[in-house]
Amino acid sequence: MKSPDPDSRGAAAVTTATNPRVLEHPERAEIRLEAVLHALSDAVRLRIVRDMVRGEGEEFACSSFVLPVTKSTTTHHFRVLRESGVVRQLYRGTTKLNTLRRDDLEALFPGLLDSILTATEAQSARLGEE
Amino acid sequence: MKSPDPDSRGAAAVTTATNPRVLEHPERAEIRLEAVLHALSDAVRLRIVRDMVRGEGEEFACSSFVLPVTKSTTTHHFRVLRESGVVRQLYRGTTKLNTLRRDDLEALFPGLLDSILTATEAQSARLGEE
Repeated sequence: MKSPDPDSRGAAAVTTATNPRVLEHPERAEIRLEAVLHALSDAVRLRIVRDMVRGEGEEFACSSFVLPVTKSTTTHHFRVLRESGVVRQLYRGTTKLNTLRRDDLEALFPGLLDSILTATEAQSARLGEE
Repeated sequence: MKSPDPDSRGAAAVTTATNPRVLEHPERAEIRLEAVLHALSDAVRLRIVRDMVRGEGEEFACSSFVLPVTKSTTTHHFRVLRESGVVRQLYRGTTKLNTLRRDDLEALFPGLLDSILTATEAQSARLGEE
C-alpha cells in the first residue's frame, strides 16, 4: 500500500476532520429522546438551559453562566448538551457561543422542553432555591 | 469495645435493616426531577414505563415485560426506576410487583410524564419502531 501524499493529506486534516474549532452536532433527525433526557438529568445542565430560556438574546458565551463548578466541568456540561442536540455551539474568535436548539427540539418532541422547564421551576420553588 | 450479642443482632438484621424483601423508596417529597429524567433516559426503562401506562391493571411483575436484555439487567432497570421514584415495587410471595407512581409524579411535575411518553411515541413512529 502506498501512503497518501503527506502534503495534501495534512492540508485536508487541518481544515476539516481534526480541526478542533469545528464542533460536531447531531442533525435534527439524529437527535434522540434518551440523549436529551440524559443531558437534562443533571442540575447544572438544567440550570444552563433554564438560564438560556430566561435570558435575553439567543447566543450565550459559556463564561456568561455563573455555575458552581470548575471551568473544565462547565466545558464538559456544554459538550453533553451539544452532543445530545440540546444546544448548538459555534466559535466566534476564541469564544464558544451557545444557542438553544429550541426549534429542533420542538419539532421532534412538541412541548417536552417546556414541560421539563416547568418541572424545574416547580422543584426549585418547592426546595426553596432561586 | 464489646461486640453486640450475635443472636439479638442477627434477629434484628433479618427482620429490619438488611431484609432483602423490604425495598427502599423515596417519599414523594424526596423525588428529584434529575433522578426521574435520568431514570427515563434509557430506551429499556422508557419502554417499561410506556408498557405500564398502556397495559391493563396497575401491578406488573418484572417478568411480564418482554425486554431485549438479561434478567439481571432487567432487575437493574427496575431498581433505577424504583430508586428515582418512578415505580413502586412490592413483594407478593417471591414475585416483585411494580406500580407506576403516577400520582406522585403528577403532583410534583404536572404533565411531565405524559409529555415524555408522547415524545417516546413520536420517536418510535419516526424511527419505524413498534
